[in-house]
Amino acid sequence: MPIVQIDMLEGRTVEQKREMVKRITAAICETTSCPAEAVTVIVREASKQHIAKAGVLMGDK
Amino acid sequence: MPIVQIDMLEGRTVEQKREMVKRITAAICETTSCPAEAVTVIVREASKQHIAKAGVLMGDK
Amino acid sequence: MPIVQIDMLEGRTVEQKREMVKRITAAICETTSCPAEAVTVIVREASKQHIAKAGVLMGDK
Amino acid sequence: MPIVQIDMLEGRTVEQKREMVKRITAAICETTSCPAEAVTVIVREASKQHIAKAGVLMGDK
Amino acid sequence: MPIVQIDMLEGRTVEQKREMVKRITAAICETTSCPAEAVTVIVREASKQHIAKAGVLMGDK
Amino acid sequence: MPIVQIDMLEGRTVEQKREMVKRITAAICETTSCPAEAVTVIVREASKQHIAKAGVLMGDK
Repeated sequence: MPIVQIDMLEGRTVEQKREMVKRITAAICETTSCPAEAVTVIVREASKQHIAKAGVLMGDK
Repeated sequence: MPIVQIDMLEGRTVEQKREMVKRITAAICETTSCPAEAVTVIVREASKQHIAKAGVLMGDK
Repeated sequence: MPIVQIDMLEGRTVEQKREMVKRITAAICETTSCPAEAVTVIVREASKQHIAKAGVLMGDK
Repeated sequence: MPIVQIDMLEGRTVEQKREMVKRITAAICETTSCPAEAVTVIVREASKQHIAKAGVLMGDK
Repeated sequence: MPIVQIDMLEGRTVEQKREMVKRITAAICETTSCPAEAVTVIVREASKQHIAKAGVLMGDK
Repeated sequence: MPIVQIDMLEGRTVEQKREMVKRITAAICETTSCPAEAVTVIVREASKQHIAKAGVLMGDK
């Protein structure tokens, strides 16, 4: 059941995402004793025009 | 008010999505007695490089 | 894979939610040819103090 | 901490989004006394084929 | 259509939330020319045991 | 920027959540070279009456 949604800046390689979802799944399974098959991870990449911190688009920083 | 967000693998036709949102809206209205106008459905399609099950990207399965 | 998140006003019975998730899952499977086992539905109920339409809390309507 | 996710129809200019995130952040900070640095806004734009109201895709309206 | 989801620490008063959703809705309408009736805001409050920054639960800071 | 939202069944201890968010944050930082301060994790716990797999509420399984 654990559903993980990650919103992050675009630009990571497939290899980085591959390793990230593997390690996140392991982190959840090993700390909450749930089977890996129960874990779904959704990765959403956004451009700098679509994310703002402190009221400023990251593309304007 | 019911807001429905669906994250799914990319690749469905517009016709499939048209029928899906129609039937999901009917399912909610008929079981919770809310008017169809209150229901919003957002469909997000993701590539196999952006979804992982059991720690493995779907593109690697 | 289809992950469905539904945000709705609190107050539905377990029976209504039971029927709703069943029919939503069938709607998705029958229109997108995916197996029922792939579908996860998360239902989040919110109070009228936590939902606003047209800038007004539903509890103030 | 306030994390704001906005799902909206595609088509706004960068200038509109720039102004929108600035004013949303100010709205949150001024009403809940949190510092602007704590606020993250994620803007997701969707096509008319990916949003439905009252069971009908916005592209079919 | 704009759907706004805000995740924030619990503890704000109803009056703060009332004012916040009003001003957020105005911010979106005035910058993207959409009618207030189209805007839905969902506020989710979380405890300090359910939010982490830099890998540390806010309740442990 | 990475914002992580985790929806999971209720029932984990604070200690489990403490360890989980720590390890998830490390997993993201070490695979995508982002600073820990940039990572926010939101944990949402749901009852078995609010999660369905294959069209059946987990409370009915």
